[in-house]
Amino acid sequence: MKTKRVSSAAEVLRQCSTYLFDCDGVLWNSKNVIPGAIALLDRLFELKRNVFLITNNSTKSVEQYSEKCRTLGLPVSAKNIICSANVAANYLKCQGNFGPVYVVGQSGIGLELDKCGIAHFGIGPDQGPDNDVFRDIHLEPNTTGVVIGFDEYFNYRKLIKATSYVCRGLPFFATNEDAQLPEGDTILPGTGSILASVKYAAGKEPIVMGKPHQPIFDVLRSQHNIDPDKTLMIGDRLDTDIAFGNCFGMYTACVLTGVTDSELLSKVENDPGRTLHRPTCTFESVQQILEKLNEIENQGAPHPTG
Amino acid sequence: MKTKRVSSAAEVLRQCSTYLFDCDGVLWNSKNVIPGAIALLDRLFELKRNVFLITNNSTKSVEQYSEKCRTLGLPVSAKNIICSANVAANYLKCQGNFGPVYVVGQSGIGLELDKCGIAHFGIGPDQGPDNDVFRDIHLEPNTTGVVIGFDEYFNYRKLIKATSYVCRGLPFFATNEDAQLPEGDTILPGTGSILASVKYAAGKEPIVMGKPHQPIFDVLRSQHNIDPDKTLMIGDRLDTDIAFGNCFGMYTACVLTGVTDSELLSKVENDPGRTLHRPTCTFESVQQILEKLNEIENQGAPHPTG
Repeated sequence: MKTKRVSSAAEVLRQCSTYLFDCDGVLWNSKNVIPGAIALLDRLFELKRNVFLITNNSTKSVEQYSEKCRTLGLPVSAKNIICSANVAANYLKCQGNFGPVYVVGQSGIGLELDKCGIAHFGIGPDQGPDNDVFRDIHLEPNTTGVVIGFDEYFNYRKLIKATSYVCRGLPFFATNEDAQLPEGDTILPGTGSILASVKYAAGKEPIVMGKPHQPIFDVLRSQHNIDPDKTLMIGDRLDTDIAFGNCFGMYTACVLTGVTDSELLSKVENDPGRTLHRPTCTFESVQQILEKLNEIENQGAPHPTG
Repeated sequence: MKTKRVSSAAEVLRQCSTYLFDCDGVLWNSKNVIPGAIALLDRLFELKRNVFLITNNSTKSVEQYSEKCRTLGLPVSAKNIICSANVAANYLKCQGNFGPVYVVGQSGIGLELDKCGIAHFGIGPDQGPDNDVFRDIHLEPNTTGVVIGFDEYFNYRKLIKATSYVCRGLPFFATNEDAQLPEGDTILPGTGSILASVKYAAGKEPIVMGKPHQPIFDVLRSQHNIDPDKTLMIGDRLDTDIAFGNCFGMYTACVLTGVTDSELLSKVENDPGRTLHRPTCTFESVQQILEKLNEIENQGAPHPTG
C-alpha cells in the first residue's frame, strides 16, 4: 500500500465517513487539550461521522482513557476508544488457552487483561529483596507469555525476567514500539525503548499490537467494520500514525501539533525510502481540519455514505 | 577483511607470537577456571609469546580483573589485561577536554575514569526520591558525554537521563554490545541490551569500545604494537571475538566452552551473510590448544619472531 493521493484536502474530508484520531500531539499535549479538538469532535458527531481515538500509549485502559477524555471535556466515551493495552488483551484472549502472562507494564494493561480473564503478574515495582537485583529470581513454570508495555518501574531485574521467559520460547507480545512518549519538555523514552532491550537480549521479535501493525487494524475491521477507502487517519507521527493509515489503505492527515514539523515533512517527501511515511494531506492542527470541514459543509457538500 | 585461511591449526600456532584471549567462556566460566587455562598461559609465557586477556565485560577495571586472575590462579598481571572500561576511559582522555560524564555502569568504569582524571557521576542505585522515578530529574548542564556499560541498577530513571543527555547532542559512548552475559544457567542481559534501549529512545548511535570495534584494536596496536599477521584471537563468541579478529586481519580460533557449539559453527560456515563470523580454526577448549602447542613444540617447530 502507499499514500492515497487526492487533488485537495477538501476532497479527503468529503470522502471520509470515519475519522481515526491519534491522541497525544493531536487532541491533547500532556494534560492540555489542543485548541479545536473539542469543537471538531462535536462537529463530526453532529455530522454523523464515525469517530475513534486510537492510541499506542499502553499506560491506560479504555475506561481510564474515557475518564481522561471526560476530564479534558472531549465528547467521547469508551466505545470510541481503541488503545494498545486493550488490543493486546483481546489478542491474547482470541489466541485462547492463555494462562498467566508476565507483564512489563502498568495498570492499564492489567485492567485490560483482567477484563479478558487473563491472569498476569509483574506489574508494579520489583527491585528484589533488600534491593538485591539478582536475588530470588524465580521463573513461574506455568507462565504462558510475555507482554511488554510502558513501565516506569522497568529495571534490570525485570529485564532479566522478561528475557528469560522469552528465551524459554514463550509467546512474546508488545503493545507498541514508540521511541518516545510526548510529555512536555522532558524526553521520556517510550515502550519501544524498553522493548528494544528485551528484543536485543533475547534475540527474538515480538508480535506488536499498536500502529502501524496489523492487530490494531484487525480490531477496527472486525469490531467496527470500518471501510479504509472512507477512513481518515489523523496523527502527528509519521512512522506510526501515517504509516499505519497508508499501510491499510486509508487516507492520512498529519497535524503539526506533535512530534512532526514541516521541515521533517519535506525531508520525508524527498526521501524515496520513506514513501510509507508521507501523508495524503497536512493540517496545522485539528482547528484547521474543523475550519476546512465547516467550509465544505457550508458549500453544501454531499455527505459520504457508509 | 575476512577469515585468514590455513592448512591446519598447527600452522596457526606456529605462525603466531601474540595470543589474545577472551575471558568468559574461554579461560573461565563464571567463577570456575576452564581446565587447561592455567597450563596454557604458563606454557605461552615459557615460550615467550605475548599474551593479552581482552574482554568486553565492563564491570571491572584492569586491577579488578588482575585480582580476579590472581584468585583463580591464572598467571597474568595487570599489564596483560585489556578491558572495555579501560579502553573507554583512555579513549575519552585522548579526545581531551572531557568534563564530567554521565555513566550508566558499575565500579569498573568509575575506577578507570578516575585513573584517567575524568570526572563522572551516575554510578550506583538511582531510584528517585521516595522511589518516584520522575521526581527531581535534573540534567547537569556541564556534562560532556554519556558512557553506557553494564549496570545492574539500570532502570527507567537512568534511561530517561541517558536519553536526555544524548538527545542534547552530547558525545555518546558504549563499552560493548554483548547481548548476554555468561553467568551459569541464568540468562543475564548484557550491556548491548541496556544500550539498545538508549539508542532506540534517542535515535542515535554510540561509539563502541569493545570487540569487534576499532577502539580496542587501536589500544593493541598503539600501546602493545601487535602485528595482526602474527596474532591469534581466541574466543567463544562469533559476533564479537571472531568478527574482531577477522576484521583486523588476525588469525581466529573458536573454543566450544562458551556460547558457541558445533551446531552454530556449521550454520555460520554455510551462511553467506556471516563470513566475518567464521574462525580460522576451532578447538574444543584451551586444553586442546595446549596439547596442539606441545605437539608442535615437541616436533621442534621454529619459533615465530616478533
